[in-house]
Amino acid sequence: MNMYLYGYGPKNNEKFILVDVGVAFPDMESSPGVDLIMADPTYITDRADRLEGIFITHAHEDHIGALGHLFPRLQAPIYCRAFTAAIARNKMERAGQDPEMVREIGVWPETVEVGPFEVGFVPISHSIPEASALVIDTPAGRIFHSGDFKIDTDPVVGEAFDAKLMQEIAADGIMAFVCDSTNVFSPEPGRSESSLPPAITQMMREATGMVVATTFGSNVARLKTLAQAAVDAGRSVVVVGRAMSTMINTGQSTGVLTDFPPIVDLEDSKDIPRDQLMVLATGSQGERRAASAQLAQGKYRGLEMKDGDTFLFSSKTIPGNEIGVGRIHNMFAQKGVNVVSGDDRYHVSGHANRPDLLELQRLLNPDLVIPMHGEYRHLREHVILSEGNGRKAVIASNGVMIDITNDAKIVENIDTGRLYLDGTVLIGALDGIVRQRLQFAMRGHVVVSLMIDDDQGLIDGVWAEGHGLPDARNAKNGLDGLLEEAIENDLRKAKRGALSDDEAVEMIVSRASNRVCKTAIGKKPVCTVLINRMVAE
Amino acid sequence: MNMYLYGYGPKNNEKFILVDVGVAFPDMESSPGVDLIMADPTYITDRADRLEGIFITHAHEDHIGALGHLFPRLQAPIYCRAFTAAIARNKMERAGQDPEMVREIGVWPETVEVGPFEVGFVPISHSIPEASALVIDTPAGRIFHSGDFKIDTDPVVGEAFDAKLMQEIAADGIMAFVCDSTNVFSPEPGRSESSLPPAITQMMREATGMVVATTFGSNVARLKTLAQAAVDAGRSVVVVGRAMSTMINTGQSTGVLTDFPPIVDLEDSKDIPRDQLMVLATGSQGERRAASAQLAQGKYRGLEMKDGDTFLFSSKTIPGNEIGVGRIHNMFAQKGVNVVSGDDRYHVSGHANRPDLLELQRLLNPDLVIPMHGEYRHLREHVILSEGNGRKAVIASNGVMIDITNDAKIVENIDTGRLYLDGTVLIGALDGIVRQRLQFAMRGHVVVSLMIDDDQGLIDGVWAEGHGLPDARNAKNGLDGLLEEAIENDLRKAKRGALSDDEAVEMIVSRASNRVCKTAIGKKPVCTVLINRMVAE
Repeated sequence: MNMYLYGYGPKNNEKFILVDVGVAFPDMESSPGVDLIMADPTYITDRADRLEGIFITHAHEDHIGALGHLFPRLQAPIYCRAFTAAIARNKMERAGQDPEMVREIGVWPETVEVGPFEVGFVPISHSIPEASALVIDTPAGRIFHSGDFKIDTDPVVGEAFDAKLMQEIAADGIMAFVCDSTNVFSPEPGRSESSLPPAITQMMREATGMVVATTFGSNVARLKTLAQAAVDAGRSVVVVGRAMSTMINTGQSTGVLTDFPPIVDLEDSKDIPRDQLMVLATGSQGERRAASAQLAQGKYRGLEMKDGDTFLFSSKTIPGNEIGVGRIHNMFAQKGVNVVSGDDRYHVSGHANRPDLLELQRLLNPDLVIPMHGEYRHLREHVILSEGNGRKAVIASNGVMIDITNDAKIVENIDTGRLYLDGTVLIGALDGIVRQRLQFAMRGHVVVSLMIDDDQGLIDGVWAEGHGLPDARNAKNGLDGLLEEAIENDLRKAKRGALSDDEAVEMIVSRASNRVCKTAIGKKPVCTVLINRMVAE
Repeated sequence: MNMYLYGYGPKNNEKFILVDVGVAFPDMESSPGVDLIMADPTYITDRADRLEGIFITHAHEDHIGALGHLFPRLQAPIYCRAFTAAIARNKMERAGQDPEMVREIGVWPETVEVGPFEVGFVPISHSIPEASALVIDTPAGRIFHSGDFKIDTDPVVGEAFDAKLMQEIAADGIMAFVCDSTNVFSPEPGRSESSLPPAITQMMREATGMVVATTFGSNVARLKTLAQAAVDAGRSVVVVGRAMSTMINTGQSTGVLTDFPPIVDLEDSKDIPRDQLMVLATGSQGERRAASAQLAQGKYRGLEMKDGDTFLFSSKTIPGNEIGVGRIHNMFAQKGVNVVSGDDRYHVSGHANRPDLLELQRLLNPDLVIPMHGEYRHLREHVILSEGNGRKAVIASNGVMIDITNDAKIVENIDTGRLYLDGTVLIGALDGIVRQRLQFAMRGHVVVSLMIDDDQGLIDGVWAEGHGLPDARNAKNGLDGLLEEAIENDLRKAKRGALSDDEAVEMIVSRASNRVCKTAIGKKPVCTVLINRMVAE
């Protein structure tokens, strides 16, 4: 969930620009039921009147996904290139925001001036069209913000990495190089997208049945690589999954994707022999609702994989998604489908590896390296790598504000955090809402309803229900019966007057619930008490 | 959670032996709050009078962990070797079962006769002491059950893999070879434990500060490798984490672990310079409560890691644990600790790789290969590998009963499933209990309390509380207020007599809750209704 803030000007009167407004995805471990995770922009929204512009480097969700959700708090013009702009407008529209706030910018040497900043988009190779580095000029000097990038001089779709352009940009000096760190632990030089076609074509030629391939929908270069390999292997190309079709259409309508092989409608593919078909499907990360998962479980829109077919993950499994991807693999194995997964012949990364990071440092020759993208361990490793290369480098972790003009000193530690989109509401990650849901998941929930009359007497006993809890097998009336008996007993024994105080009642009930459940089932559930106080009329 | 059942005899009067009684570990994704997962032994417990014995191949939790929990349902003598027996007795005692049911057996050619079976323990190399394959002789022929194994002719601790012994055992023919499949996707021959010391020693020599190393506590060979490397690098050895100390003690007391370097008490290590210390710590899989995680967060029993220290994962991260391990890595990185992770120089697997599987097939020359251990995709790949090697092989997935004597025909598909240890209660994975907890985690919980008098009238309105839910920000009385208003309204509008039926009331309330929450916060929570019916006295 990338979000970077640059400021220039006198203290407390700086002007700002924001680079990228991304999301991260929830998991059951920490954020069950949450729809999206994004950075908490409170520091920026408190200064939104001084935010001059929002720049989006490329259209991956971790760089653009929060745009629609956070725009109401940011309210500044959005600048990006054409392909990114198409996606950005869509995000704005779906969030009920004005898509006209998105402004298309051409590539360097074109620039846009916003406040004290002059910003240009430098084409750089990655795994989505029109990925860009940013040149950010300020009166104090030039910043080079790499965005996500790799060094690919033949990327199949879009602009090649242009070493000469980098050197030209750096000719008058780079004050700070803010650089992608994702693959800092990968020791070998990265490989080009154009290294894949021979192996993929051979695989598709040798496959005996239908081939289904998945990758990130936004990696239109890979989609083209896969489709062209299919055609070269004598197969027709079908695309299933809405996200993938959308990306291909966006690529074609914005002119970045050309010469894509003809796509056959799924309906029209029924007459084509299976061994002459190659299907591109969404869901490379094991997402349960995507086409790949549905194919693994059975059918997707009438399409079914069979014994002898081949399923290709032309992708890397993102840490955390191994179980989901493995589940798909197992389901396909049960159908007799050959699954090809984690094979470097059929996938290259979109990020610069260790030697590539050093190569771009060499081309830019910056005064300072500030690693970004990645967890703390990546940032630290990138600093060590840079210092080993004789460069000054500094770790800027979440919330750290650095004065680039003043020896890279840390000048402020800003409270940052996460916002969750939970249903349709933005909540703070630490609001306790999701924490409570996690408690229910771990411990179950005992719900107790009481009626107390105005003489502080219990009316008609107590209702107690355990939810998400095993029953107490040896108890005649089950766990609920044990709970009711114990709670009633404890309440009747309570000191005179205690029942007039809701908190005291809750305490008595919770203690009884903990005691009963610990003994009967070995758990201490969350306990909620609903107190109905009857008033004589 | 391994559990294998062998039977011999006329239909419906077979005698049985059980091999291994393991557990799997829960995760938030599918089993939040669960303590342990084990196979549902219903088919066996229905025939427990014909269960002649339980054989445990080795003491890893996925082979022995359910012994104490399921023994009450199985009630048969337990056979294993001395090291495994020490652990088995401990499991029995902690579950309140009789440890005397555990019987120590020596190694092949010693055997034990149980019913129509004669079973022997064959030493085989793995990553825990006294791991054993089983020779299971029946009147119909000999079965070789590999257990977990690797081919290691110099395993540092315990017996080396003995090819000649395997050939001797196979001399009169092997009817079926039931074989570990864990590493069937690993193409290179496995490496020996004894290949590690030079690299580990060098690393510990070059490290500038304290070194902390983690691995599975039961891998006492690795513990010895690490400890000896430390001593060779001039470091004293400290052990932190109870599980690790227990394993070392068990290894020493059962005689399998000898010549372990001297261990210094943590308290006595305070005077030793940091660069002369090597600490063995539990928690190689990122477990939150283990010593490694606590060290990463701060201190563990006064021990603290500092800038320039080194933390070594001498282990592989099990799929599903990547996030937890990454979290530890990041926390250490923030302290300036150098983390060494996923480096093959410092870890070897305990399982046979693809060429090793073929090698043991060659030595045993079985009539039939039945892959075990691993997910369906592993079993399938193992069958394909075996068939490619000219052998008959068959997939026996969970619940599949195969007649080994009759062309490996599938003769029955037994309903199998999982039991969860939830607190102190064994529940079925599909009982709906955990499913309900997952629903709470995803959707939150609305709890409603009503009082209805015997004229079917609502008394004093409705109590509603949303738990684990965002509030409705624009509503004066919040989400709870909106819920109460809507529920009261709907109940008052309900058909005359509807309120006399609990189910009808619950339906009306749930619908109102869904409608209100969907509109106000975009979620549909679980809804629980507690109906208090007042009876005139």
